[in-house]
This record gives sequence, structure tokens and C-alpha cells, in this order.
Amino acid sequence: MSLLFVHEAESREYLLTPGETLECDLGVLEVPEDVEPGEIVESHIGEPFTARKLRGPDLFNHFERTGAPMMPRDIGLIVGHTGVSGEDEILDAGTGTGVLSAYLARCGASVTTFERDPEFAEVARENMELAGVADRVDVRTGDVTDQLGDLDRYDVVTLDTEDAPTMVERTPNLLRDGGYVAVYSPFVEGTRDAVAAAHEVGLAEVETLETIQREMDFDDRGSRPSTAGVGHTGYLTFARRV
Amino acid sequence: MSLLFVHEAESREYLLTPGETLECDLGVLEVPEDVEPGEIVESHIGEPFTARKLRGPDLFNHFERTGAPMMPRDIGLIVGHTGVSGEDEILDAGTGTGVLSAYLARCGASVTTFERDPEFAEVARENMELAGVADRVDVRTGDVTDQLGDLDRYDVVTLDTEDAPTMVERTPNLLRDGGYVAVYSPFVEGTRDAVAAAHEVGLAEVETLETIQREMDFDDRGSRPSTAGVGHTGYLTFARRV
Amino acid sequence: MSLLFVHEAESREYLLTPGETLECDLGVLEVPEDVEPGEIVESHIGEPFTARKLRGPDLFNHFERTGAPMMPRDIGLIVGHTGVSGEDEILDAGTGTGVLSAYLARCGASVTTFERDPEFAEVARENMELAGVADRVDVRTGDVTDQLGDLDRYDVVTLDTEDAPTMVERTPNLLRDGGYVAVYSPFVEGTRDAVAAAHEVGLAEVETLETIQREMDFDDRGSRPSTAGVGHTGYLTFARRV
Amino acid sequence: MSLLFVHEAESREYLLTPGETLECDLGVLEVPEDVEPGEIVESHIGEPFTARKLRGPDLFNHFERTGAPMMPRDIGLIVGHTGVSGEDEILDAGTGTGVLSAYLARCGASVTTFERDPEFAEVARENMELAGVADRVDVRTGDVTDQLGDLDRYDVVTLDTEDAPTMVERTPNLLRDGGYVAVYSPFVEGTRDAVAAAHEVGLAEVETLETIQREMDFDDRGSRPSTAGVGHTGYLTFARRV
Repeated sequence: MSLLFVHEAESREYLLTPGETLECDLGVLEVPEDVEPGEIVESHIGEPFTARKLRGPDLFNHFERTGAPMMPRDIGLIVGHTGVSGEDEILDAGTGTGVLSAYLARCGASVTTFERDPEFAEVARENMELAGVADRVDVRTGDVTDQLGDLDRYDVVTLDTEDAPTMVERTPNLLRDGGYVAVYSPFVEGTRDAVAAAHEVGLAEVETLETIQREMDFDDRGSRPSTAGVGHTGYLTFARRV
Repeated sequence: MSLLFVHEAESREYLLTPGETLECDLGVLEVPEDVEPGEIVESHIGEPFTARKLRGPDLFNHFERTGAPMMPRDIGLIVGHTGVSGEDEILDAGTGTGVLSAYLARCGASVTTFERDPEFAEVARENMELAGVADRVDVRTGDVTDQLGDLDRYDVVTLDTEDAPTMVERTPNLLRDGGYVAVYSPFVEGTRDAVAAAHEVGLAEVETLETIQREMDFDDRGSRPSTAGVGHTGYLTFARRV
Repeated sequence: MSLLFVHEAESREYLLTPGETLECDLGVLEVPEDVEPGEIVESHIGEPFTARKLRGPDLFNHFERTGAPMMPRDIGLIVGHTGVSGEDEILDAGTGTGVLSAYLARCGASVTTFERDPEFAEVARENMELAGVADRVDVRTGDVTDQLGDLDRYDVVTLDTEDAPTMVERTPNLLRDGGYVAVYSPFVEGTRDAVAAAHEVGLAEVETLETIQREMDFDDRGSRPSTAGVGHTGYLTFARRV
Repeated sequence: MSLLFVHEAESREYLLTPGETLECDLGVLEVPEDVEPGEIVESHIGEPFTARKLRGPDLFNHFERTGAPMMPRDIGLIVGHTGVSGEDEILDAGTGTGVLSAYLARCGASVTTFERDPEFAEVARENMELAGVADRVDVRTGDVTDQLGDLDRYDVVTLDTEDAPTMVERTPNLLRDGGYVAVYSPFVEGTRDAVAAAHEVGLAEVETLETIQREMDFDDRGSRPSTAGVGHTGYLTFARRV
């Protein structure tokens, strides 16, 4: 697993793998094979870098991107609403950058994820290595709808694809009792279609949530919501097999 | 671990432990010691109940409450923002009903949680049994600030207590490098104090978020946000040790 | 013009016209023909009622309703965005209860408003009398689209009807230079259609706003947004003839 | 009153007074003394400019600014909540750029407004000329609290000053029966103080509203709230004398 090497005084961080060598203006940093989180490694000119395990938001910041990844906030809302557990088997379509899959795997879940674009799938696999969850995330190249026959049942199905409504229709055969499907969709129309599909196949607890987040500013003059607004990301639709 | 026994036709669910006997108007239901999720158990008059594993939201709904528990949405936002992983050791104060601790443990984390009220702590322990996470959640009775000397370092510290600002001041000695403290506080004033404490002790990435969620309604007339508003729960403040 | 007669000790208010007689448990109140706002009139048993002019929100509360009237907040947003002035001539369709028309007329504007339902139109006319703006609001019975040939140009056109998109298409011939059309629509789909119509006929500054309002609670424990949410009313779409 | 001279093809607008001469790259434009809204005036090289009356939002855009003026949306919310009418006498402190005063006067109200800074007050007077409401807005230089003895009673008092809570305490002697005080304050703390002051002096219907507005985006892919958020402006607190 890669680690972050953080130079505090300069507020810089580099993502490096044991054995790797970094050359920068702070010197040459050779990462020992046996480095542990918390250890300080010095560059050849004595600049100190603290080794740090990656946490979820670090994945969001350091993963190679193949598109706009899902925000930690929306990933968290999915985890909270579906109650992800380390015993879960989860089906995730489509992979994209893979931040959602990595988060779910970090919670101990076994994730099967589908990415249509072979190059994107390859990047996602590298991201899973980087996150140290390659053993719990199976990134499959292709369209999930072509491989439904090979699939088992899952505790949670997460959908972030344009044809999510079609997949929602299949979820009664893909979900275990009590399992959830979660759909992330930026637009009202796609969300509406997903909701209609969920009702049509008899899923329960169908619910769409829109989330507006604002930062709070605290300064000497007082406390207030930020004058810089936080924009829309996507609607989250949940439904449950009962 | 307890299981839910769901009678679909009547839309009822009972939380029962293997070996337990339920008597209700749908007959007498004896739960076999070796029952597995997915199995159907019939009452003595033939009414079918499907055994189901509890998921996170079920814990929220079935835990015995000793106060208003944190909502799954806020728990999810904490998980998303701090990037909880199965390798994490987490300090949680105060326990309350224990929904947050149980969610974190379901993600594989080892949780040490403090509850001042001995009776509430006992209820929380029972809730952890019920959630099947008693081995990963250590519910300690008492005030966390009295036991700081015995504590190690944690990956995440979660605070939902009135004296959160005081605890935030201690977090530099309680957090590992890169670890997060997350504070849930209903009021602006307490939130402001927590933010000030985080800045004072040199924590980084200090940020307070307010989250507004609205349900979307889809019917024959069209699509719109619900006319029933969703109210404020609490501010979430995050800070990181770097 | 009618006045409110407010009994402060009992927190009651009655809407009465000079010359009218009220009989209630606080006695018989005969309203003098020459009563002025601010005067106190006593019932035959000496209970004091203060005469008070109606303000905008009082109209919202006391008008006879023929449907859900537009909220003062949305009316205000229309006034603010279009910059209503006492010199304005305004076309308003459809009238409904007439709160919007009355508010606009109270700002000095001359309002021509259309209501399809003859009974509703009659109620609206009575409401205009009650608000003291009957001389500035012409409530016409019928469908505005049938009478477009008779209409002049307006400074502002306000639309709160299901076929608003059709009317938006006509606004280039109904608006003066620099004039605004404002559309209130509860659903995304109708709003989208109105926006498309505005673009199609070449209106400028086309903009749709969604407004979320929350009350703030201040008590001894602290300050926070209300835990009771405020729901969706309608989208406001504005466009301008330039 | 000044008029806007709009060159449509170039999307430009100039604020000019009858008799004034504009020299720009579109030629020399001499504004006739008797120009009327709707007329087209040509520059000496034949470029057409349409004369247009200023509407509220134009004031917001063209007034000379002495600080951040109140947004049309917040002005509208004040008009809606207090039900401003052409018969109203309104006390406004402090003036600032004067957009609020001008809006209120455009609704026919007589406005007395106070501005501490003599230069700002002079700019505000010029802005009132420009808006054509100088006869209905009396911009007084000085601190309103120093001149309370000279003041009559008002239908509405609007406060956008740092010491608003002090003024709220005086409003029982400044408001007519049924009149409203409206306080605009950016910070929670000032808002809380204003609310406390309103309760202390026995005002009724005390209410603080926070308003979040979002633009909706409609394009070929679908409909959604804008990904660019709209930030906080100020809290609006209302209270009424009854």
C-alpha cells in the first residue's frame, strides 16, 4: 500500500510506494521498503517527511481521475442510509475513478464493480492498489447489464450510471432481503425514472434526497453561513428489497 | 446476534434472538437456535416470518433509546468526511443510544466509547450485543476527560457532548497523524467554541458544515421538492491532525 | 375599506367595515362610520378594540380563499426581482384568491387580472374591496389567452397558471421594454417548459430561482436553525424583454 | 429622472439624464430634454439607443455604491413580509447605497432614512435623484439614535446597522399599531441580540428567517439545481407592534 509522505513546514504531501524514490526541491527521498505509518523519513538534505496512511478523503484527492468522482459527502450519505458493514457484498456500477468502491472496501465490504471503458477500468484497478483494497474490489471491464446472469445476490447495489433506471428494475433479483439499492443521479429526469422503476418492481422505502451543504464561517465579527455557496452534486435515491 | 423476523403481508417486523419465543396475534413463533438470515420460520398457525440481518438503519429504528440518537445521515457524513476504515481505532464520546458506535463498528473499526450515565451505558452495551458488534465496541462508563491518561492514540475521535470544545483541545494528543476529530453540535455557539478550540491547538482542515436535506416528490402532476421541510439536526465540525 | 378590530388582551382580531355590527362573547361592537385607524372602539360591555389598517400579511390571513394563495415571501421575491413601482401597469393571470394582485396594487400599481372561474373572480373582487384596492385592480372573468387582442402593454406580467408556458410565448407583445415576466410554478416540468418558452421567444435574463427558507430558533441553550423544516412552495422564473 | 439608453445589438446600456451628452465608440449621443421611455435616440453616426425607465434591479446595478447594497431578493422579502404600501411612512436606518429606500419609495412609501457618513449620505441623495424618488426619500445625515425625539410614528422601520438591537428597543415608540420592524443582519450574534431586544420590549410575531436561493439549470441533459451555489446574505428578523 502506498503512503503519503507529508512535509509539514512546506504543507506538501507526496503519495509514494515503499522502494520508490522522489526527487524534488526538498531533496531526494528514498522510501524504505519497510517504512511504517508515523515514521519520519529524511531526504538526502535532511528534510523530514512523515509517513501517513491514506484516509478516505486522501483517496478522493490523490486517485488518478477518469471523470468527476463522487464526493465524500455523497459516499457518506450512501453508507449512512444503507448501513454498509464489513460483512456486505456490494455491486457497484459504474466504477469511474473508483472512490466509492474504495470507500466501501475500506469499510470491509467485498465490492464487485463494473466499468465500461477498459482504460478507465485499468486506472480504477491501480487506484484500488493505491488504496490497499485491491483484494476486496473486483473491477470488471464491461457493462453490468451484459453480465447479470453471472451475478449473485448483494447486500447493497450502488448505481452511478446513465441507465440506472434499467438496473433498478433488475435489483429485486440482485438484492438480498433487506438490501438497498442507492442511485446517484445529477438530474431530476433521471432521478424520476429511477424512482418509477423502483416502484414498478415493488421495492420498498423508496426515497429521493437532495442535500444542500453550507460551510459556516466564524470570525471576529460573528458567525454565519458562508457567503460562498455550495452547489448541487446529485440526487440520491434509495429503495429496499423487503 | 439478533435478527429481524419480517412478516411481509402484515408489514410487521420483530427483533428476536435465536432461542427466543414470540407470542402475538399471528401465533407463537419459536426462533430456532440455528436460524440463518433468509430462512422462513412459521408460527404455530403457519404465518411466515423471514429472518433478516439488521442493517444500519434497522439499528437506528430498533435500538432501545436513551435520548435522541444521531441520524444515519449525520453518521454517514462523518464516515464520508473522515474516511472510516476497518483498520481504524476510534474514540467516541458520549455514547448515548450508541447508533454511531455501532455504525462505526459495523465498518470494522474498533471503538472505545464513553457514557457518563451508568444506566445509559448499560443500555448501550445491550444495543451493541443486539447489533452483533459487542466485540468491537468497548462501552466504558464515566467521563472521558477523567480517563485521558489511560487512552492511546486514535484514527478518529467523534464528539457528541456538551463539553466537546474541551475535548477538542486534547485531540492533538489523542489523534494519530492524519486522524480526524468530528464534532456534532446542535447550536451555533457550541460549534463556534469547538472551531476556536481546534484552531487554538493547531489542528488543520478545520471546517464546519451544515446540511439541509429535502425529500423529492414525484407524482402525476410533476416533480418537486417536498412541501414538508426537513429540519436542522446539528452542525458537523471536522479538524485534522497533520 | 375594512379595518381590523384587535382585542389585545384576548389576542383576537375581527375584520369589520364601518357601519357593521359584531356580536361576540366580548359584547356587541358597533363600528362607527367615521372610525379611523388607531382609535379604540368599545363593545357595549366596555371591551376595547383597536382599529387597525390591514397590512399585506393581514390580507393573506383574512382574504376569503378560493385555493392556496401565493405566500408573502414569494410575492416579495417577485416584487424584489421585477422592481414593482407605483407607476407600473401589471397583468396578472390567474387571480386565484388575489393576494398577489392586492399586494401589487398596494405598491401603487394598476393591475389587470384574469380568473377563469366566475365564482372565484367574484370572491377576488370582494377581497380587493376589503383590501381597499378595488380601484386599482380590475378582476376580469375569463381566460387571459382569449382576450389578448384587447390588451395593451405592461411593465410586469405575473403568471400563476398551469398554461404559463403558453402565455410566456406571448409576452414579447405584452411587455414594455425592460419589463419582466414572472412565473410561479410548483413543479420542475412546468418550470422547464416556461424557461424553454422564454428562450424561444427571445426574452433576456431568463432565470429560475428556488427559495428555501428556514426559521432560526434562539433559546437559552443557544442559536440554531429550526428543527421544523420549511417546505417547497414554488419555483420562480423571471425573464425580461430587452 | 435619468433613463437607461440601451444599445441592443451591442448589449450595452448607459444611464443618462435628459440634456446630457454621451461620447463613446458608438458615436456622440445627445439626449433630448423631452425624451420619453420607449423612444429611440440615434448617435451622430446613426447607432440606435432605446430609452428605458429604470426598474428596481437597474437601480441595484447602476447606483453609485458606498458599500455592499442589500440584494433585491432581501428587499423583496422585506416588502412581502411587512406588506409595504404606497400609504406607508417608513423609517430606514442606515441608508448605505440607498437601494432599499429607493425600492420602498418606488412602491409609493414616504421614506425617512439616516446615514452617518456625510459623503455616503450625499451619494445616496444623488442615487435618489437618479431613481426619480428624491421627493419621497428624505436622506438625513447623522445617527438615527440622536434624533429619535424629532421622529413621528412609522408603519415600517427597517434596520441595517450594527446597533440594530438598540434601535429595536425603541420601536414600540416608533411604530404605529400593526407596524413592523425588519432587521437585516449578516451574523447570528447580532440577529440573536435583535430578537432578544424585540422580545424584551414586547413586540409580537418575532421571527428570524434565513433564505437560501439556488438557481435551476435546464439543458439538454436534464434539469437540476445549479452546481454553483448561492451563498448567505443576511438573516431577516421581523417583529410587529400590536
